[in-house]
Amino acid sequence: MKKALPPQTILHPHPVLIIGTYGQQGKPNLATASWGGICCSEPPCVAVSFRKATLTYHNIIESKAFTVGIPCSDQAALADYLGMVSGKDENKFERCHLIAQKSAKVNAPFADDFPYTLECKLIHTFEFGLHTQFVGQIVGILADEKILGEGGAPDIEKVKPIIYGSFGSSNYYALGEKLGRAFSLGKKIF
Amino acid sequence: MKKALPPQTILHPHPVLIIGTYGQQGKPNLATASWGGICCSEPPCVAVSFRKATLTYHNIIESKAFTVGIPCSDQAALADYLGMVSGKDENKFERCHLIAQKSAKVNAPFADDFPYTLECKLIHTFEFGLHTQFVGQIVGILADEKILGEGGAPDIEKVKPIIYGSFGSSNYYALGEKLGRAFSLGKKIF
Repeated sequence: MKKALPPQTILHPHPVLIIGTYGQQGKPNLATASWGGICCSEPPCVAVSFRKATLTYHNIIESKAFTVGIPCSDQAALADYLGMVSGKDENKFERCHLIAQKSAKVNAPFADDFPYTLECKLIHTFEFGLHTQFVGQIVGILADEKILGEGGAPDIEKVKPIIYGSFGSSNYYALGEKLGRAFSLGKKIF
Repeated sequence: MKKALPPQTILHPHPVLIIGTYGQQGKPNLATASWGGICCSEPPCVAVSFRKATLTYHNIIESKAFTVGIPCSDQAALADYLGMVSGKDENKFERCHLIAQKSAKVNAPFADDFPYTLECKLIHTFEFGLHTQFVGQIVGILADEKILGEGGAPDIEKVKPIIYGSFGSSNYYALGEKLGRAFSLGKKIF
């Protein structure tokens, strides 16, 4: 028998995504988001949601592009900082000694410091209420060679991404042990 | 210097979501999805994407509702199976000895076996290409009492969710060690 809880935005595991955008006078910004995920395989698309109160919301509306950097476990304090401070108040690249690089494919910056970054062209904007969802077509990926695995794609074991607990346990976590192979483990049940 | 990779749908960590729907003659179905995430805080909403070729796509279009179950690490083989077999070919509830319960709030079933389940009312449908994104308003949560943490919300450490590696390392993983407190770790940088 389950206990009925009120509606809450909880869906484990939550990702930790670092969104790069340009603002006025080409000022680069980074902001952490956890409301997001892949939303289409072809064209490859990612969705991220922001409140209108954020600088990133306005930057994406204006520049029609963003990057999505995936931080590693060692960068949890940095990722947390980038979600606590607004780019309206601070140049977060300078404050964190990050070097803003310009994507060659979209009008958005990224920090070379993260293991890999998706380069995204805005293709849809949906207003849902407090949050607006931006759907970006992934037009390229910039990755450290050392984090690549099968087929030349980023390998989660080498990336060592951060997992966010959200409500219930508001902590960051590392990736744990391997449970088994996808599209194989389930054959036990056939 | 980063290596430029072709576009791919990779965004670590990927969630493992079990989507419950009713089909024709009220036949309950469960299907595993990894393309999804929270997309709005108020109203609380979750987005999940499916291909038109799936039974779940048609079931959501017809029933305008779905549930999102979060499996635990011990259920990795079950979650994998539910993503490998179509409900068109098999009654997955029966095959896996799961008991289909009806949500009291939306027209969708869930399996009592998962630590918690979101009950979702379809509010938007967006066609992106190969995938269609369904946005559900979370109208309730059904949870095991033993997995609740701070403020009565599901605690990721007690839920022990599954993390999917996707391309690059196509395995399932457990949650790892705690890295630090969110909205606190970043204060080091202030």
